[in-house]
This record gives sequence, structure tokens and C-alpha cells, in this order.
Amino acid sequence: MNLDLVLKKLDESQEYAEKRLFELLQFKSISTDPKYKKDCYKAAEWLNKQLIEIGFSSSLKRTNGNPMVLAHNDQETADFLFYGHYDVQPVDPESLWLTNPFEPVIEQTENGSVIRARGAADDKGQLMTFVEACRAIKAVEGKLPCKISLLFEGEEETSSPSLIPFLEGHKDELKSRYALVCDTGMWDPETPSITSSLRGMLSEEIAIRGPNRDLHSGLFGGAVPNPLQIMSKLIAGLHLNDGRVNIPNFYQGVEKTSSDLLRQWEKLQFSEKEFLKNLGLSQSVGETFFSTLEKLWSRPTCEINGLWGGYINEGFKTVIPSEAYAKISFRLVGNQDPEKIRKEFRNKLRQELPADFDITFSDHKGSRATQFSVDSRIMSEAKEALTDEWEREAVFVGGGGSIPIVKHFREILNTDTLLVGFSLNDDQIHSPNEKYNVRSFHKGARSWVRILQRLSRLL
Amino acid sequence: MNLDLVLKKLDESQEYAEKRLFELLQFKSISTDPKYKKDCYKAAEWLNKQLIEIGFSSSLKRTNGNPMVLAHNDQETADFLFYGHYDVQPVDPESLWLTNPFEPVIEQTENGSVIRARGAADDKGQLMTFVEACRAIKAVEGKLPCKISLLFEGEEETSSPSLIPFLEGHKDELKSRYALVCDTGMWDPETPSITSSLRGMLSEEIAIRGPNRDLHSGLFGGAVPNPLQIMSKLIAGLHLNDGRVNIPNFYQGVEKTSSDLLRQWEKLQFSEKEFLKNLGLSQSVGETFFSTLEKLWSRPTCEINGLWGGYINEGFKTVIPSEAYAKISFRLVGNQDPEKIRKEFRNKLRQELPADFDITFSDHKGSRATQFSVDSRIMSEAKEALTDEWEREAVFVGGGGSIPIVKHFREILNTDTLLVGFSLNDDQIHSPNEKYNVRSFHKGARSWVRILQRLSRLL
Repeated sequence: MNLDLVLKKLDESQEYAEKRLFELLQFKSISTDPKYKKDCYKAAEWLNKQLIEIGFSSSLKRTNGNPMVLAHNDQETADFLFYGHYDVQPVDPESLWLTNPFEPVIEQTENGSVIRARGAADDKGQLMTFVEACRAIKAVEGKLPCKISLLFEGEEETSSPSLIPFLEGHKDELKSRYALVCDTGMWDPETPSITSSLRGMLSEEIAIRGPNRDLHSGLFGGAVPNPLQIMSKLIAGLHLNDGRVNIPNFYQGVEKTSSDLLRQWEKLQFSEKEFLKNLGLSQSVGETFFSTLEKLWSRPTCEINGLWGGYINEGFKTVIPSEAYAKISFRLVGNQDPEKIRKEFRNKLRQELPADFDITFSDHKGSRATQFSVDSRIMSEAKEALTDEWEREAVFVGGGGSIPIVKHFREILNTDTLLVGFSLNDDQIHSPNEKYNVRSFHKGARSWVRILQRLSRLL
Repeated sequence: MNLDLVLKKLDESQEYAEKRLFELLQFKSISTDPKYKKDCYKAAEWLNKQLIEIGFSSSLKRTNGNPMVLAHNDQETADFLFYGHYDVQPVDPESLWLTNPFEPVIEQTENGSVIRARGAADDKGQLMTFVEACRAIKAVEGKLPCKISLLFEGEEETSSPSLIPFLEGHKDELKSRYALVCDTGMWDPETPSITSSLRGMLSEEIAIRGPNRDLHSGLFGGAVPNPLQIMSKLIAGLHLNDGRVNIPNFYQGVEKTSSDLLRQWEKLQFSEKEFLKNLGLSQSVGETFFSTLEKLWSRPTCEINGLWGGYINEGFKTVIPSEAYAKISFRLVGNQDPEKIRKEFRNKLRQELPADFDITFSDHKGSRATQFSVDSRIMSEAKEALTDEWEREAVFVGGGGSIPIVKHFREILNTDTLLVGFSLNDDQIHSPNEKYNVRSFHKGARSWVRILQRLSRLL
């Protein structure tokens, strides 16, 4: 592959690449809300068309939820399977957005140009770095240097309900030597990174019910149990004062981080002060005796993601509601078993529930944590490619979030995954005003070209 | 007054009275939500027209919020000032209503016919018992037996922000010997009641803010404080394990219920078991060592009326929200001072708030508790009138809810209030499927005729 020519091609066509990304960003592909089902479909259709245009043999694959986009440049077993997701998080609270979340704009900021839109970083902008890399290689070389499959799903933000059956049902077609995923971040704006571990996740939705109907708090208050008070007690009881999660056997399977990895992380010169300041905070919280990087990369958590009940609109209503609700998620590490923890969590709440209360649990998916060896050829070649592009030594980092696909690739397709991404800490993923740096987008595509060149040589 | 003829007139025109009430029930006069401002206005206009039709000199009085309806049958100082409110509670959760809340229907139930609609009991049905009583007396006698003013407000369910300035500004026009209010209940479906004490109320809305934006719980969870967890802790800390409210000096001004009143209440043969069973409950909660009637009528409370934050829609969003919210109200008794308690409450929360958190409080009105002597002529004549109509000895009861107007009448107009109402425990006030028994509506109007006859004789 003539690397210089391909990179030059990317530089010259940057404007068109941005235009294409803008088109994708305009689809309101919010998978968590059924009312955007059509928008998800349109985003998938657009991607399918793109891939066909580039020369892939691509098609939409129907699922029980949003469709998959599956493409190949060759009929045979692929060398690399690239995965991304075209669905995005909801935009609420919408009032905090300074621009329309689905009308992408390029803004000049003190840290350079950024693309502002929901999904700019997670994951539309990131997946397009790979698509643009392929486009440029094809334009210059006429063909790709290896056999590549691409899989785009539209349910990543809702725990991928269709993914496992899809992988199971298309094992042969999806087979590959290695998977590539672009859904992670850089260590800092100058330092490219490969993510070598990911936390797992378990999420639960609970509803508790006490009195058989909403009650007037004047006529009944003081003599009946209030579900909001009970829920607050249940949730307050999920943590101990030292920050530990207060569920029996929760820490079973949690391993001590290796001193090797801890040393590497120390070298990153992470500034807790800066990290907190950027969030409007000054005090470290969470488990005592652990550094912030350990808390984020190698310790499990329990977080309340939603809590509601009673009258929550403008004004006041003196009601004792009959029900209260919460959405709760856990980040898992090491060998923690999501299903065991789910059981312990439910048992605990059932035991703490006062008389006359019912509790119902809604299943959301669980996934274990993942760890990769950092010593493989693939890892070291990818690291070199990133180092070349960014002119700064690439680093191995841990990932706080979950990318369940990685686990599924290993378990169903027997494939390990290279996690490379160009998102930055201030990209406001899952928050209002999400953005993706133009530099991430452009140098991301260039990085993939370099990675593909190096990895092809290993074949 | 020819009592028999007037009561007969009411019996004969029952169908028309129901038709008129249905018209009033159709207005969506939800005062707590600004989007129903027009509907509130229309309800006021309708009442104004009714009163003019009956022969009152009536007009709408503008306020900063919803208008007042003020009517007189005589220019001079009224003997009695009747008060009611035409605004209603919100209808949420609307999905639990079996009929449209603003399309009243008459339903046959095992406890007789009921009028089903939002506001049927609180307070449209109740205020119309008095209006219908006046209409019947006028129809038969040509005039009322005494000087009567009527005042209907449209902001009772939002703590009456316009009421005090209105009373202050119309002191002369509103002057009367005694106030009459129909916004309370019967002891049971057979036993008419006069409410001789009311709890006061204080309500607060709080917002806490931690991180400066919503965060991804995977990328940040474990190392940043979660406002939902903090809010749960704050709320769980508002009560002690024995049910007492955990705010410094909260019980200052709370008096022991007199043994006289306690004896009277014992005679009511209240069944705690039945009370709880009707609510789907089996266990008594709240302050230990107090009977349920004491808890409801003579003990103060703290109730959470609304609680929310994070992602509360369908699906899942792994967010650590930057903010959390709660609506909290207190019922007050004896000489508890709402403003002192507000201060203590705010201090307590401010002290318990962790580092890096802000808290804001939104003022909602506070009102003290009220108690009336049960030995006055007015009280005893009213009791006789009710006993005559219902053929069961009327009783004095406590009221758990607040009717701040009573306090304002005493403080601003120097007038005591007779609280008579015909609502029943199962009327589902403030809940879905609110209803008012047809019997309450009809015998309520007959009761007012009897009361007006007896009270006029005292003049």
C-alpha cells in the first residue's frame, strides 16, 4: 500500500468526509426510545449505501429490533471484523443543549475545531474514521490490503438485545482473525491509546409499590408508608460510608490490579485535581485507599442512573404516591459474575423491603469485564501505527465503560478485539453538547490506514 | 323559612343540580399547571354566571393568578361568608383513571351512586352543595334568611398565592360574622361531622447539584459523587427509625392531645385494620406509641411528595446526572411555627450536603395548624342541623389536611370558621378516579339549608 498517497488522499478529501459524517449525524437514531425506530432504520440504510458506494458487498440484516449493517470486501473468512454502532443516547435534558443535537455544526473552540452533535463521538464519528480509511485506500489502491468485514449495530445504547442471536446466527459470515472496534478514547488530546481492559455491566430497573393508590398526604400522612421514603432508604443502603458497595459477596471475583499495570498507570501522570476540576468538583469520593484511575478502570461500582416517583411537574401536589422507581447499574471487573450479583442485589432489596410492599425487577442485560494481553503482535503493531501518526508514544489504558461486544466476540466468534478510539475526555458522551474533535476524526481515519497497513503485513 | 318546602324543592330538582355540577366538572381547572390557566378562568366565569342567575350580585375579581369569584345577596356586612375553591389537583397518573377525569359520569357502585370526575369531591361537588342550597331557598322563599357572601378561589391546590393580598385588599367587602367552608369529610357514610382542628402545612422544593454536567456512569462512575445517591441519603435521614421526624426542634410547639378529645375519638370506634385494609396495607407505620387517629389529626409529619433525577423514561441510560430534585411537605399541629421549621430543615440539609454540592430551596407557602372550641352556639346549632338531616348524631373530628383559608380568615378577617363537608374516605381525593357520592351531594345541599335556617335564628 502506498501509505503516503492514501494519507494525502484523506487530507485532500477531509471536507467531503465531514459532509458525510454530518449526514449520518442528522438521523435521530435514539435506540432507547421506540418512537425513533424509523430514524434508526434510516441511519442503517444510509450506512449500507455508503459501504456499497465504497465497493463493499453490504446489506441490512433484519433483527427483532433495529437492523444490522453487514458488509464484506471478500467472500472468504475476513482477516478483520470492524464493529461500530449507529444508535445514540437520548438527548435529555434537551434544554441544556446550546445547539440542536441533530443539526451538527463545526465550532471553533480554544482546543481547536469540534463537531457538535449527539453521536458525534459515540459512536458515529468514530465508526466513520474506519469507513473513511477504507474509502481512501480503495480510492488510491483500488482494493483493500486485507479481507475486511464491517458490522454496524443499532442497539448498543440499549444493551444490544439482538446482538447475541445475530452473532450466533451468522457465525460463519462473521468469522475473522481479529476484531477492531472504534468506540474508546485517547489518554489525552496528544496521546493515542489502546484500551486493554473494560469493565463489565449489570443494570436493573426496580419498582416498589406500597399503598394501593396515590393518597393525599394531609389525609393519610403519618399513618401510611411512603414509597419515596422507602426507596430512598433502599438506595442509601446500597453503599457503605467508605464508598464500598453494600451487597453480599459483591467483591467476589474482584482481583488486585497487577503492580505492573499500576506502574504503567502511574507513568500516565494523571492529575486527579484536573480531572475533578473539569467536572466542577474538588474532593475525591468513592472507595477509600484507591487512586482515581483504579476506581475508574479496575474497581466495580454501583450507580443510580434514574430515580422517580410522586409529583414531579411544576407546582406542588401533596401526594403520597403508591409507587416509586429506580434504574441502577453496576460496573464489574475481574471475574465478577453479573448473574450472581443480580441475585444478591435482588435478595438484599427483598429482605430490606418493609411489610406491605411489593418489588418488581426488570431485567436488563449483564456482561462480564474483559482483559487483553498487551504482549501480542497485533497489539504492538497497532501501538506502533498510532505512535507514528500522533508522534507520541501510544499507551495501554483501562476502560471504565463496558463494550459488551468484546465479550461476545470472544465467546461466540472466538475472536479477540483491538480497541482503538479517538474520543477525548471532554467529548461529553451521553451528556448534552456532545462533540468530537475534527482532529480526532481526521487523524483517526489516518490512524486506521496506518493500522491496516501494519496489520496486513502480519497476515 | 319553610324548611319542608325548601327541602322538597331540592329533592325535586336533584336532576338539574347534578346537571349543573357536571358542567362545572368539565372545566380542566388544574391550577398547578400553567397550561390550564384558561380553563381555570372559564370555571370561574361559569360560577359567576350561576350566582348571578340565582340572584346574587357577583363578579370576577382579577388577581396575579386565577380570578376570585365574589358574590353578595346584600350590600351590608354579611352574616356568613361561604368559601370554596374551583381549582382541582392534576390528574396524573392519567393511565390509572378508568374514565376521562373531565367527563363526569354517574356510576352505580355497591355503596350507591357516585359522581366520578376530578374535583367531584375536592372541591367542586362540595361547594355546589352550598350553591344549590341557596338556589332552593331563593326559589321557594324569594330571599335568603340572612346576609351571605360567597368567595370562590382558583388557587387552593397551589397554596393560594393570591389569597392573602386579596383578603387584605377586600377586608371590608369580605367582613362577616362567621365563615362557612365545605371542603372536609364525614366521619363515615352515615355520620355527619364538623372538623374542629386542622393540621398546618409547610412545603419545600429542593434541587441539589454536584458534577457540573451529566456524566457517563461507565467513564466516571466510582470516582465522582452521584446526586441521586446523595439525595436518597438526605431523604432517608429525614426520619428516625421510630417514625419521628429528624429535624432539630421540629416538635417544638406540638401539644399533647387533651384527654377529653382523645376520649371522644375513642368513641368513634375507628378500625385501624379496616383503614389499612382499604389501602392495601396490613401494618401500622409512623410514630410508635400513637394511635392512627392521633397520627392523622394531632401529630406532625414529613412526607416526600415527589422525587426525581437522572434518566426516567423507557429503556436505560447509563448516566450520572448532575442534579436531583425533591418536593417535601410537612403537616403541622399545635403551635409549630412553619417558618422556624423551614429554617431548621434548610440548615440541616445544608449541613449534611457533601463537599462540591449546591442546594437550592424553592419557597412554597407555610401555614400554622388551627383549632376551634367545640362549645360555641354556632358549633352546637350546626351539629343539631346535621344530626337532623342524617338522623345520626354528628361528631367533632380532627382534620389531617390543611385548609389555610381558615387561618387567614382568623388572622385577616377576624372570623372563625365552621367546617362542614360531605366527602367520604373512599372519595380518592388527589388520586385517580376521584368521586363524590350522589348522596353526599344531595343531602349536603339539604344539610346547608338546615344549617342556614338554624344559624339565622341566632342572629
